[in-house]
Amino acid sequence: MTDCATAGVHGVVVIASGFAEASAAGREAEQRLRALVRASGMRLVGPNCMGLLNTDPAIALNATFTTPVLPPAGTIGMLSQSGALGLAMLDYVQTLHVGLSTFVSVGNRADVSSNDVLAYWADDPRTSVLVLYLESFGNPRRFARLAPDVARRKPIIAVKSGRSAAGSRAAASHSAALATSDTAVEALFEQAGVIRANTLQELFDVAVLLSTQPMPLGPRVGVVTNAGGPGILLADTGETHGLVLPELTPETQAALRTVLPPQAGVANPVDMIAAATPAQYARTIELVGADATIDALVVIYIPPLVTDPAEIAQAIAHGVGTVPAQKPVLTVFMTAQGIPAALNMGPRGTLPTYMFPENAALALSAAVRYGRWRTRPRGTPVRLSSFAHSAVRAVIDRVLANASGPLWLPPGDLATVLGAAGITLAAAEQTTPAEAVATAERLGYPLVAKIVSPDILHKSDVGGVILGLDTPAAVASAVETLVARTQQIGARLDGILLQRQVSSGLEALVGVTTDPLFGPLLVCGLGGTLVEVLHDVAFRLTPVSDSDAAEMLTKLRATVLLDSYRGAPPGDREALIALLLRVSALVESVPELQEFDLNPVKVLAPGAGVMALDGRMRLAPPG
Amino acid sequence: MTDCATAGVHGVVVIASGFAEASAAGREAEQRLRALVRASGMRLVGPNCMGLLNTDPAIALNATFTTPVLPPAGTIGMLSQSGALGLAMLDYVQTLHVGLSTFVSVGNRADVSSNDVLAYWADDPRTSVLVLYLESFGNPRRFARLAPDVARRKPIIAVKSGRSAAGSRAAASHSAALATSDTAVEALFEQAGVIRANTLQELFDVAVLLSTQPMPLGPRVGVVTNAGGPGILLADTGETHGLVLPELTPETQAALRTVLPPQAGVANPVDMIAAATPAQYARTIELVGADATIDALVVIYIPPLVTDPAEIAQAIAHGVGTVPAQKPVLTVFMTAQGIPAALNMGPRGTLPTYMFPENAALALSAAVRYGRWRTRPRGTPVRLSSFAHSAVRAVIDRVLANASGPLWLPPGDLATVLGAAGITLAAAEQTTPAEAVATAERLGYPLVAKIVSPDILHKSDVGGVILGLDTPAAVASAVETLVARTQQIGARLDGILLQRQVSSGLEALVGVTTDPLFGPLLVCGLGGTLVEVLHDVAFRLTPVSDSDAAEMLTKLRATVLLDSYRGAPPGDREALIALLLRVSALVESVPELQEFDLNPVKVLAPGAGVMALDGRMRLAPPG
Repeated sequence: MTDCATAGVHGVVVIASGFAEASAAGREAEQRLRALVRASGMRLVGPNCMGLLNTDPAIALNATFTTPVLPPAGTIGMLSQSGALGLAMLDYVQTLHVGLSTFVSVGNRADVSSNDVLAYWADDPRTSVLVLYLESFGNPRRFARLAPDVARRKPIIAVKSGRSAAGSRAAASHSAALATSDTAVEALFEQAGVIRANTLQELFDVAVLLSTQPMPLGPRVGVVTNAGGPGILLADTGETHGLVLPELTPETQAALRTVLPPQAGVANPVDMIAAATPAQYARTIELVGADATIDALVVIYIPPLVTDPAEIAQAIAHGVGTVPAQKPVLTVFMTAQGIPAALNMGPRGTLPTYMFPENAALALSAAVRYGRWRTRPRGTPVRLSSFAHSAVRAVIDRVLANASGPLWLPPGDLATVLGAAGITLAAAEQTTPAEAVATAERLGYPLVAKIVSPDILHKSDVGGVILGLDTPAAVASAVETLVARTQQIGARLDGILLQRQVSSGLEALVGVTTDPLFGPLLVCGLGGTLVEVLHDVAFRLTPVSDSDAAEMLTKLRATVLLDSYRGAPPGDREALIALLLRVSALVESVPELQEFDLNPVKVLAPGAGVMALDGRMRLAPPG
Repeated sequence: MTDCATAGVHGVVVIASGFAEASAAGREAEQRLRALVRASGMRLVGPNCMGLLNTDPAIALNATFTTPVLPPAGTIGMLSQSGALGLAMLDYVQTLHVGLSTFVSVGNRADVSSNDVLAYWADDPRTSVLVLYLESFGNPRRFARLAPDVARRKPIIAVKSGRSAAGSRAAASHSAALATSDTAVEALFEQAGVIRANTLQELFDVAVLLSTQPMPLGPRVGVVTNAGGPGILLADTGETHGLVLPELTPETQAALRTVLPPQAGVANPVDMIAAATPAQYARTIELVGADATIDALVVIYIPPLVTDPAEIAQAIAHGVGTVPAQKPVLTVFMTAQGIPAALNMGPRGTLPTYMFPENAALALSAAVRYGRWRTRPRGTPVRLSSFAHSAVRAVIDRVLANASGPLWLPPGDLATVLGAAGITLAAAEQTTPAEAVATAERLGYPLVAKIVSPDILHKSDVGGVILGLDTPAAVASAVETLVARTQQIGARLDGILLQRQVSSGLEALVGVTTDPLFGPLLVCGLGGTLVEVLHDVAFRLTPVSDSDAAEMLTKLRATVLLDSYRGAPPGDREALIALLLRVSALVESVPELQEFDLNPVKVLAPGAGVMALDGRMRLAPPG
């Protein structure tokens, strides 16, 4: 390596293993490698990797030790954190009739990281689709900043493994990588527009689609088939994942009727029946492709004995040439005999081909979701005004000045901080029976009165909660009743809690949790504490933009509750979005924030806003 | 056909189309066909089908018009409701090195139905795995009765398509089949032990596993691999679907250390690293296979340049021969170059082989779920005693005697019916302010008092609900307050509702809905009405057995609430199961039942039972 540096070498690939993945001595050796390249200005890929290759004819570099010949040139850039798996991926992708621009096995990432490769591809004109196999993130926050910028320009499709206990145990043991919370990864990928493939198969299915076809402009798909069954399977899987199969226009249906036999189905899927001829395929593809109600086309073929697959393939390729260029076309060729070469020799070149209709549906739906993400406005996060920021910092700095460890922000300080950030907490105060009426007059009506007693866990079980107090007299009478009940059951009474009553409104929870690698995650759920049991919560990395916040709400199954659900009043969606943005802004002003909950938050009628009934914030002094 | 009957032919396959799927005249022609075979004693497969085949050497029947030669003989019976798709399936399965006993394209099912074929296979010694592609059920209730009996003996793996709107539109148009509710299908398959494959790929992946390997006795899987990445992917997908990757015993790990290089991971997955030799494969498989903590084994291979796939395949086949016979073994061969023949020539014969680790994980987890279903007790449904049955019928018959259409059972009659069925409804009565105390004395304490007014929609918003009344004096005072509040807001007062208070307990809903094809479905959810929004409800066809009822509860995400969740008191699971069984029994006694809800049901502490707070039942006169 020293010789390389002396000779003026710019880049080095270290394939050898036995470094950080192996032992403490290896880790030290790896640090020396890194120090050497950093001092010399060289860049280093590896160690413990399978190498890299670049198919650019001007470069034609094969620096792998496993792949004897360069794969065909193409537009896919592929990165693998697992060397052996990268090899299998390289092997497999060549069966799909698509080519690669570059392949990088990043290994231990002593110098060049996955993020560096991502940044390189973002500007590489030969690369248009980015395929990643990741087991961990070296610098997750840099990935979080970089990925959305790259994904706006080029699709990133990733398998991120190590979700499971055994999987992360294996990932940790074989590459010394830190296991990250999959919740944060999921949030990051959704927010950053990274297409997460659940399986390797899906990774390739999507990559082939996006490297050969335009991005779909919408979810509406037309299906042309010579067998009913696969059309139905495509519709089932597609609709489950957000595709729509609209009925074709009457004009298209009428035109199809003149081409196809009477037994054919022409609504969509278009079932041409088994004996469909090459001419019928070509013309039907042309008619369905031209229909303005569809954004993408899937052509399915099952070879019956009566037709010649090669002729049909040629007809499909020819027909696809007439489909408007902005509409992607996918094919399903259900045969174990291999795909006729003619399929990829039409005006559109290589067509994505799938063995089963479900794969085509999954790939297309992933592309549709990505296309939607790319066209949605990025939005902007909210920041606290400098006045609000100072007010918040004054409290936080004072509280943390003498803190020796993490602490819960005292209620009064919490109210001040939230008030400065524009977050409304329902007025509440603990008082004594004697002072209750005076406290009530200060808080305003209506009020709820609750027993405060160390002996009573479930207040409402003992009649310890009285609602609907709207006069001083009602408060006095309620307090009398509560005192009597406490005595009756022999419990101690610490005081009476009076709280402004917000009996209408939908319950939500808004909070912040901290991922050890990714940092603060904003969390939101709707409909009471049960949503936590049912895992119906959405996460986003902070800071969130208004688009992110709006999308969080649509990700919840309970999002229907914000509209007028079963006659219940709707909720103030805009105000809830604004609250999410304010909480995100607060996180930016308070990096010491470790945990924060507003629960419950009442979402009132549209225009009436939201109100947090309870809140707590945990801080950790910087150190 | 007449000639066939005259000649004494036993069975006929009608391939011709143009029958019920095509037109009204065709439907009539099909009815004539059916009448003819029914009169003659012949059986008919079709019309509008691809035919059938039987590989039994004593029969060697190829009555398809599409497949020139018989496929290899084996133990898979395959049925397809889509002719063309059946053909593609027949084509594909032959690439998997497994054979068929029989293949039937059932077509329009004018005589022989899918159920008939299922019944045939149940007793056919040459068939051990049943593979179905279904778009509809001709006689869903017969399938519901037949399938569990068959599935106890032989696995049934099915793709049931037509879930989506467009899918069922296509299914309806191309085979005139009725679209069925997928909820009922899902309930039926789970209850009947039918393995539902979500994709064709999964259908084959599971079929190959079950036709070549024993049923796994548990979910614990050992993984042997020469690359880390695929092991992690297998662990991720497997754990998501119920598999477990336990750490191997210290003895196994120590033995592996003597065989493998120091960089190898030996916990599980066992990562032998890329250069693993044939001898290492064979010995590692033997050691992991012998480990008592695992029930099944997955062997993964990615061919690096340094090893010869054929030699490794032979070593794997040989090593698998040493694995105890009751443990299934799956292989993942990540190469596009094809599987070496040696892999299937060891003592175990054909091994299931997958291109990607996720497919192996999905197939094995489906087999584990099926194995668990098969070993669980069938259980028995509850029936009403003849005394209870008479009591219920007396009410129902009286109410329906004069009914001209569907009706809601009046509250008093509902209470009688539920009482007879052993279902407890919380005592409640609408009364007047003057009679409230007398009513309270009759109902017992504690009580809730509620305003009944046509002008008040949300009672608690106006303080119209008072809880915790446990003396006559408390009732009198509460009634006075309610009357005053009603006057205060100028609302009319119809009366006061007094109801026994059940303030503790977890909320559940139990009900019955009727599927047009499958009949009554029992439904259960936990945690309040929100569960409906979040679709956290479980369905089963009635009658349900005690095993079914217990399983319904475990299917709910909210099932954790029945245990002591976050310090909240646990619920009486047994009593909730008993309630489900009683509701199921009630359905058997009241076939006129169309819709039935107990909502909310309070699930009290273990031993304290359950109590329905509200209920309603809709009946339709038979007609």
